[in-house]
Amino acid sequence: MDQSLLDRFKTIVGPKGWTDDAATLAPHLTEWRDRYRGTTPLMLSPASTAEVAAIVTLCAETRTPLVPQGGNTGLVGGQIPQGELLVSLRRMNKIRALDPLNDTITAEAGCILADIQAAARVADRIFPLSLAAEGSATIGGNLSTNAGGTAVLRYGNARALTLGLEVVLPDGRILDMLRGLRKDNTGYDLKQLFIGAEGTLGIITAAVLTLFPQPRATETAMAALQSPEQALALLQTMRASAGAALVTFELIPRIGLDFVTRHIPNTRDPFAAPSPWYALITLESGHKDLRVILEAALADAAAQDVIRDAVIAGSEAQRRGLERLRETMSEAQKYEGGSIKCDIAVPVSAIPAFLDEAAAAVGRACPGIRPVAFGHAGDGNIHFNLSQPPGTERAAFLTRWDALSTLVHEIAARHGGSISAEHGLGQMKKDEILHYKSEIEMDLMRRVKSSLDPNGIMNPGKLV
Amino acid sequence: MDQSLLDRFKTIVGPKGWTDDAATLAPHLTEWRDRYRGTTPLMLSPASTAEVAAIVTLCAETRTPLVPQGGNTGLVGGQIPQGELLVSLRRMNKIRALDPLNDTITAEAGCILADIQAAARVADRIFPLSLAAEGSATIGGNLSTNAGGTAVLRYGNARALTLGLEVVLPDGRILDMLRGLRKDNTGYDLKQLFIGAEGTLGIITAAVLTLFPQPRATETAMAALQSPEQALALLQTMRASAGAALVTFELIPRIGLDFVTRHIPNTRDPFAAPSPWYALITLESGHKDLRVILEAALADAAAQDVIRDAVIAGSEAQRRGLERLRETMSEAQKYEGGSIKCDIAVPVSAIPAFLDEAAAAVGRACPGIRPVAFGHAGDGNIHFNLSQPPGTERAAFLTRWDALSTLVHEIAARHGGSISAEHGLGQMKKDEILHYKSEIEMDLMRRVKSSLDPNGIMNPGKLV
Repeated sequence: MDQSLLDRFKTIVGPKGWTDDAATLAPHLTEWRDRYRGTTPLMLSPASTAEVAAIVTLCAETRTPLVPQGGNTGLVGGQIPQGELLVSLRRMNKIRALDPLNDTITAEAGCILADIQAAARVADRIFPLSLAAEGSATIGGNLSTNAGGTAVLRYGNARALTLGLEVVLPDGRILDMLRGLRKDNTGYDLKQLFIGAEGTLGIITAAVLTLFPQPRATETAMAALQSPEQALALLQTMRASAGAALVTFELIPRIGLDFVTRHIPNTRDPFAAPSPWYALITLESGHKDLRVILEAALADAAAQDVIRDAVIAGSEAQRRGLERLRETMSEAQKYEGGSIKCDIAVPVSAIPAFLDEAAAAVGRACPGIRPVAFGHAGDGNIHFNLSQPPGTERAAFLTRWDALSTLVHEIAARHGGSISAEHGLGQMKKDEILHYKSEIEMDLMRRVKSSLDPNGIMNPGKLV
Repeated sequence: MDQSLLDRFKTIVGPKGWTDDAATLAPHLTEWRDRYRGTTPLMLSPASTAEVAAIVTLCAETRTPLVPQGGNTGLVGGQIPQGELLVSLRRMNKIRALDPLNDTITAEAGCILADIQAAARVADRIFPLSLAAEGSATIGGNLSTNAGGTAVLRYGNARALTLGLEVVLPDGRILDMLRGLRKDNTGYDLKQLFIGAEGTLGIITAAVLTLFPQPRATETAMAALQSPEQALALLQTMRASAGAALVTFELIPRIGLDFVTRHIPNTRDPFAAPSPWYALITLESGHKDLRVILEAALADAAAQDVIRDAVIAGSEAQRRGLERLRETMSEAQKYEGGSIKCDIAVPVSAIPAFLDEAAAAVGRACPGIRPVAFGHAGDGNIHFNLSQPPGTERAAFLTRWDALSTLVHEIAARHGGSISAEHGLGQMKKDEILHYKSEIEMDLMRRVKSSLDPNGIMNPGKLV
């Protein structure tokens, strides 16, 4: 990119809105797992939708490719530039409006997810999107990757929480669809195109998001189970009894609990005897007598021999203790050597077969490998992580990432599953997906892409 | 269309799959409100996705336009041909699969909505999409119009209930995305394009739909209110107390209740004294003690002076009686002369201002006019119907449909609202929408249309 062009971009955003300083750029060019490193001649940090539009207009005129970036917490390299202009949305961090009677908040793309949650709480509401990176992830990135998390069972993913969007299109025009409507059947629902598009069709600059009442009661329980089949039976019982009060239903394997209690301070196995599987269950309600519902559902499950044992958190401290077992499960794997991460989804009914087959397949390929399969069983979304065989070489194990994850993906696909439940395609799975999606579906994706971004300037080399 | 071409279409579907008999065609060419009448040289009724694909392939080859049709219950003329080939999906009425552990059902486009509901009940589940026309509307039409109904507050509209689709594209290819996944971030979510597209981008032939547990308790109440503002306050109280147990929250005006009790047999005002407004509330839960939650929430609302009085149905018969007041509200308007229908949505917070301004505007334009504003207040969706002034001429009043609905639409738009909350655009609002959507949004819709259907053969003259 020649200097005069770079200067034109700098002029758009003014002196506070750009940097080409290597040290300042560094944290924007590496992804936190360190699987992707990037380069850029210039990072622009526009402060308004108008500045974003001016940047993209100039990009369109000059066929300059760009990569949008939020909190840089993505896991598939979608936000890392490979020589393109980098456009950080982080300075666009205003809450534009909060309408308590409509239960909506209008936030700019660069708002940190945790800040949106906090703004909702001030209004006695919750914004229920919740995920590990919420302290640094931005809502623009959450929407561009259709983020999931632990409350999807009750509240849906980012897509389900979005009523309206403002988007700067690849030609620089501003598409204002910041509507706060729950029903609007007036043509194609264009916002759906940009959600989950990883910045390849435009830059999301603001969104109208749905809020919910603060729950007045939260109950957390952990159930000990013999098998994934029992987990599904328990899920059915909980859904039937607790209905939409059921907010999370997370599967935990014995090995995962072992890793956590071994490596994470102040954690303990809440049960006297070990079980092969566990479910962590959270219920929330506006009504205070939620305990009654939880106890009734667990009693039903025990009567049907679905659970072996269960503990209900009797205090806030106990509740945090149970939740911590699940929250630290990824972290605990670090202390057991190399860990290969697979983020798959299958139909909920296929979870037991998937787990059996995938564990067998990776065990054949790599004797001694230790699958740690945990996660959002209520959504069919399993983080099928693979810890290295004890006593082997970490680096050598990690070279097998693609080969082993391919085995897992093949099995997920055979069960009608997805090779990326939450994380997206980015750079990591852009080519691999060609193996799983039909040529017709890929063709349609490319048609949508070329129709909106004919010059291919929006986040090239990602997703499609 | 020449006879040899028509013969080629007939050959695809065989003797049972076509008709050009005027009497057989008649019910497919008139819409039930009799606002649209159509013509067609031939109606094809394919029995399989392969037959649909063969029909569309021939249409694409020969540039023959077609109109897909389901149960013909649409309200904006989207399903009525104007000389095009008519493709009825009604023979594609198989339930292909029901997966109880995944809580999904796979149904062909021609399945009647009530039949899908019944199939779910057999498996001790519910399919929660529910609307007045459910006895004849097909799921293909429901999805193509993103149908709403009375349980959207809890379960979302048709879009929210759809996990996967099978679509015949405008070039005749079959796009198989019949996935039963709750999380799948592998590229653009293409199914969103076809939902609500009114058949202009392809023909939906099958869908994977989400099921929910059968509720074990249902409670229904009717609250007497002084104003729409109080209705919003009650909605907030109910949401906070009952959370997702709150399934419906319907606004009813005094005049609507008067019409119903005057004209519909076996209905009665459940209150001793009249009130200007009412809310009909339904709660559902898997737990049996739902009454406690309802009573607590109503007591809260009474303590805050939000409601004047409330009745809770004490029996199934009483519950049906309360629901009947709401269900027969459209029908009762027939007996009061001409009724002009407006299906608008606004942000929930804007309902009171919208109702005031819209009533004033139509009252100025047509003295004596009787607005009957009722409906899904929990979604911001008001059926703002207008009954003619007493003692005036029905036909003369109905000639003012466009002028009066335009007044209402302008006010909805000023509040950030929609001129078609549930019914779609079809023929009726295809031109009117140009006045409300930005040129950028319309341009993008046209780009999507021409990208997928470059020859414009799919339901021409509708939506875009």
